[in-house]
Amino acid sequence: MLMPIPFVIYYQESDLLSFLISSIICLALGGSIIRITPKVKEEVRAKEGFAIVSVVWVLFSAFGALPFVFSGAIPSYTDAFFETMSGFTTTGASILTNVEALPHGILFWRSLTHWFGGMGIIVLTVAILPLLQVGGMQLLKAEVPGPVVDKLSPRIGVTAKILWGVYILFTFLEVILLMFGGMNLFDALCHSFGTMATGGFSTKNASIANYSNLYLEIVIILFMIIAGTNFSLLHKLILGNFREFFSNKEFLFFILIILAATMVIAIDSHNNYDNIFLSLRYSSFQVVSIITTTGFVTSDYEKWSAASQLILFALMFVGGSAGSTAGGVKVIRLLIIVKFIYNEMVRLVHPHAIVLVKVGSYCLDKQVIINITGFFILYVLITVFSTIFISFFGLDIVTSLGAVAATLNNIGPGLGMVGPMDNYSSLPDIVKWYLSLLMMLGRLEIYTFLVLLTPVYWRK
Amino acid sequence: MLMPIPFVIYYQESDLLSFLISSIICLALGGSIIRITPKVKEEVRAKEGFAIVSVVWVLFSAFGALPFVFSGAIPSYTDAFFETMSGFTTTGASILTNVEALPHGILFWRSLTHWFGGMGIIVLTVAILPLLQVGGMQLLKAEVPGPVVDKLSPRIGVTAKILWGVYILFTFLEVILLMFGGMNLFDALCHSFGTMATGGFSTKNASIANYSNLYLEIVIILFMIIAGTNFSLLHKLILGNFREFFSNKEFLFFILIILAATMVIAIDSHNNYDNIFLSLRYSSFQVVSIITTTGFVTSDYEKWSAASQLILFALMFVGGSAGSTAGGVKVIRLLIIVKFIYNEMVRLVHPHAIVLVKVGSYCLDKQVIINITGFFILYVLITVFSTIFISFFGLDIVTSLGAVAATLNNIGPGLGMVGPMDNYSSLPDIVKWYLSLLMMLGRLEIYTFLVLLTPVYWRK
Repeated sequence: MLMPIPFVIYYQESDLLSFLISSIICLALGGSIIRITPKVKEEVRAKEGFAIVSVVWVLFSAFGALPFVFSGAIPSYTDAFFETMSGFTTTGASILTNVEALPHGILFWRSLTHWFGGMGIIVLTVAILPLLQVGGMQLLKAEVPGPVVDKLSPRIGVTAKILWGVYILFTFLEVILLMFGGMNLFDALCHSFGTMATGGFSTKNASIANYSNLYLEIVIILFMIIAGTNFSLLHKLILGNFREFFSNKEFLFFILIILAATMVIAIDSHNNYDNIFLSLRYSSFQVVSIITTTGFVTSDYEKWSAASQLILFALMFVGGSAGSTAGGVKVIRLLIIVKFIYNEMVRLVHPHAIVLVKVGSYCLDKQVIINITGFFILYVLITVFSTIFISFFGLDIVTSLGAVAATLNNIGPGLGMVGPMDNYSSLPDIVKWYLSLLMMLGRLEIYTFLVLLTPVYWRK
Repeated sequence: MLMPIPFVIYYQESDLLSFLISSIICLALGGSIIRITPKVKEEVRAKEGFAIVSVVWVLFSAFGALPFVFSGAIPSYTDAFFETMSGFTTTGASILTNVEALPHGILFWRSLTHWFGGMGIIVLTVAILPLLQVGGMQLLKAEVPGPVVDKLSPRIGVTAKILWGVYILFTFLEVILLMFGGMNLFDALCHSFGTMATGGFSTKNASIANYSNLYLEIVIILFMIIAGTNFSLLHKLILGNFREFFSNKEFLFFILIILAATMVIAIDSHNNYDNIFLSLRYSSFQVVSIITTTGFVTSDYEKWSAASQLILFALMFVGGSAGSTAGGVKVIRLLIIVKFIYNEMVRLVHPHAIVLVKVGSYCLDKQVIINITGFFILYVLITVFSTIFISFFGLDIVTSLGAVAATLNNIGPGLGMVGPMDNYSSLPDIVKWYLSLLMMLGRLEIYTFLVLLTPVYWRK
């Protein structure tokens, strides 16, 4: 919370106190908790892992909201909590109607929540969830850089440092490239935070459409794709292991989906633009922005045909690669599901054949497939339940669907009343709280938080 | 096709010839095929089972459409095929804008396609699919009445006769009860066919709303529930085994969902009606009609709130019990999926525990769970793909979703342009053909037809 202060001073704005007070509150409360908590030498078990992870996101959002409230930028605590949860979960859904009117310090803090959220997510998905075996993510275990040890904490520590290095490196690179395209340092930093965390908060009301600059769009497309790629794999790329990088099945499937969706939408929506190149430019940006769950906007996709909107809607659920900062179901899970379904058909034709699901040269354990199918089904059920739930508060069908998809998958802009040209400010408070919950659920791969609600978790 | 003729004669209508010509064509072609086909003494294997079942539904629809075309009732063959497929798959989606203008013979034939379709479905789901192990339906194997033998055909024969007896008995009962409420024999027969097959074709433009008669509505609600119940279980009820009937987990879950959905919608939509009883009357009818995938209508549910419509939309996918004439995912699969998801969470908390999915006192094999999850996921993927596909032909988002849900789940009325007060006549031909395919896909539990499209099926 002290990090935005240089910008407060540089731009000579008046909200210095709100950051200082917030910092002091956090320091005082955090310090007390450390003092009160008895020192335990026991190793953290999986069971505690779920609670720790969930509590971190709730507390970060609860206290991260303070500067917004104290500065008067977001007077309602509900709105401020929504905005901060949206930041830390790298969603990018906003209740702000005019971001350009806000002081720079506040905007910087807003984008910073994305960046720190992204850091947390990388460690969570690459180092913690695989060990907790959430949603079949034990799959990633073998790929994780760092020492192979049994205990949670030392491994997590080393892995985190390696991957954060990758994260910081690419953020730095993007800042340079955006500034090269004419952005000032402040905007370049904020948009790089938003890109690398696949968040989507912008410092402009019109998001990236504000610049209408092809070069900037290409840079951001490139870095959205990078941010949607497995960071272990990016680490290998940096180490010079090109062959492994470009033969990774998940990465290839990810790129294939992007190309296919871009082509179809560009053709389907070309009547909205002067020529097919313009149509390609806007469709490629929006496809990458949505599938990586970033949520930056260069065009109002609600003006596109129903088919194009439905494709974007489906892409919302695809999400990026596992082990990236992207949300959604994740490409690897979909790839495995497609292969699994095909195998089910082979099994029907040859009931006595033994059919294995392979990814690359790697045969999947039945348990991983069960975990992944379970994850996917839970995702669908939560989508359906949530859509019905929020529609009780006066939202129409398309808005309800769009709001759930955009928050559960950590995207930001949805459809209908929460489309790319709208925001979440007009929703009732209870819906805002529920959508905040959905952002966290989606971000923590659902199970991590949901197990805390089961009786079996609390039984001794 | 000769069965409508008594009504043609009784009502002194002019379309006798269309039924005779259609019959002669079928007789000639069918006779030739029997003559040409070499007599094989080999037992039918699972692999051929898929082809036989799929071909039956296509051929029945292709030739069943003839009387509609010849009589001039439905001049377009595309429309006639759609209507007949909708009949034989017990969907009830119609392209007719004014059914009351049609001659009685044609209307009777239309309802008769439902009734024969229902007969086929009972045998398919209770006797054939369990043996083919489609979508985890081997689960039903133990429950099937008839001799326990290994070969397909004798077992199917005996089972079919027992269950058809149940089907005919309840149809007869409903006809009596409807006539008691003032319907004439013709309408009572047609509506009973539509109910027991969970089809939904009516002889009235306004469907059951035409009668505005509480007694008739209660009779139809009751028989829709019966038709949505496992016919093996109904057989046990007839044999006097009440205890087994009322302790059946799937039946109880089915009733529970109906009660819960009715309550919620009745409360949510009570502003549309003078009092809560009227609201209960209409919501209970529509909930039962939709969950059993019948599709009869007593009120325009598109005037209800978005939440009520979304609940109905979700119920479309629930469907009735396995082994009934209802479509959809089926209650037993959902019950197992809910238990499976809960077990996944238990497994996360206790990674070394062995957790089994139980239905009643019966422990499920891992393979059955894999098959069921695979079925559910395939269902979701086909819904998403189909919604996108038909939206390319100018349909809006809600209409696309509604049309896919209403045909894939064999319901009939959907949402938007194909809502309860509309019909499918205005859709482009290609969409009508695609929806016909969806009706068959849904009716044959997807895999049965889809395996025919895999290369592995045709490999020697």
